[in-house]
Parts: sequence; structure tokens; C-alpha cells
Amino acid sequence: MANLANPNFHRLTAMNALEWSHPEKVVARKAFDLGLRNQLQATIRETKDRAARIQKPSELWDFENWLTDRRLEIDSTFDYRYSVLPVVFARLLRDGWIKESDLLGLEPDKLELIRRVSTL
Amino acid sequence: MANLANPNFHRLTAMNALEWSHPEKVVARKAFDLGLRNQLQATIRETKDRAARIQKPSELWDFENWLTDRRLEIDSTFDYRYSVLPVVFARLLRDGWIKESDLLGLEPDKLELIRRVSTL
Repeated sequence: MANLANPNFHRLTAMNALEWSHPEKVVARKAFDLGLRNQLQATIRETKDRAARIQKPSELWDFENWLTDRRLEIDSTFDYRYSVLPVVFARLLRDGWIKESDLLGLEPDKLELIRRVSTL
Repeated sequence: MANLANPNFHRLTAMNALEWSHPEKVVARKAFDLGLRNQLQATIRETKDRAARIQKPSELWDFENWLTDRRLEIDSTFDYRYSVLPVVFARLLRDGWIKESDLLGLEPDKLELIRRVSTL
């Protein structure tokens, strides 16, 4: 059951109630794709670095495990439903895959929510 | 139910009936470990080569998939039960991970069986 005393409940309810105008959807799509591209490019670079350093069989399977974790993490992060998009953008901001300037064009209430969630 | 008309049935029955002397077990262990070491070293080399060539995200996930397949293949190949060891050695011979000379010291009936299965 929803815990009404939990401030996150109110934030999540607020997120679901957000409306996205067409210009905001364009900004959101662009920022989402940019974050995905940045994270994928960084993962490709790290994959090459890690592979180049493998010496022992145990390191080979640790590397495979790490790469599978990266795929699962990216799959779960990049969820383009408007109801969760502020949380997605908050994570991308926090982890450095997008900058606040990439979100310019979103309404102030959304920007404020994203900024707040990114510091949690 | 076992198919007595299938020549593989007789080969498998023959394999189960094989006895391994202590000196043969020493030879078998050495050849098994050598084959595993050779396949792992080749897999590490190929992993580095493939990772270095990745350019696009889709190639990253194809690479992860390829590496997981290698782990599953190696896990299923290297089965040190005496009842299946002739088949294991036949595969290692066929795939070039060991040479016939690595099996010297096994009884002629086993060598003949391994040689025959490796050509199947």
C-alpha cells in the first residue's frame, strides 16, 4: 500500500501527473538519446581498456560478468516512459551522461523535480 | 530407451566399460589441463582482438553474446568424468587444443576410440 507519509510517494505522484507538451517531448527525446549515446560510447571505451588488460582466465570471466552487468544496467536505466522520465534524467545528470543545459526547454517544474531527484 | 541398432550406443557402452589405470589417469589429467589452458589462452587473445575492433553499440552486445557463448561452450566441453573423457579428448583433438602425442601413455583401445570419435 502507498505510504502517504513518505515524501517519495508525493514526488512519484507528482511525476505521474506531469504533462509533456510537444516541444518538451522533442527536448526530452534529444536528451535521452544523447545520454544513451554518451553512456554507450563510454562503455565501449571501457570495454576495450578492460579487455586489453586481461591476463588470466579468471579475469576473462570477471570481464564477461562486468559487461553483462553494464548491459542490464543500461537496459534498466533507459526507460522512455513519461511517468519515469524525470527519474531517468536525474540519474543521467547525476552520472554525468547529460548536462542541465541539455534539458533546457522543459518546464521549470520538471527541471526543479529532476534537479531535486538527482541529489537524492 | 537405448537404440541397440545405433553404432553410437555401442561406442558409448564401450566408453563406460573402459578402465583407467593410474598412469593413464596422470596422462589424461595433463592432456585435459593442457587443452583447457590452450583454449582459454586462445579465447583471451580473441577477446582482446574482438574488443579492439568494436565500433558501434550493436557490436558491443554481439561481443558480449559471443563471450557468454564461449564460457558456456568451455564449461560444457571440459567435463572430467572418465565415462565421457574419450569424447572430450576427441573434441580437443579435432579442434586442435591438444595433439595426439599429448595422449601418449593411454592404452591403444582408448587411443583408437578417441581417434575414431574425433573424425565423426
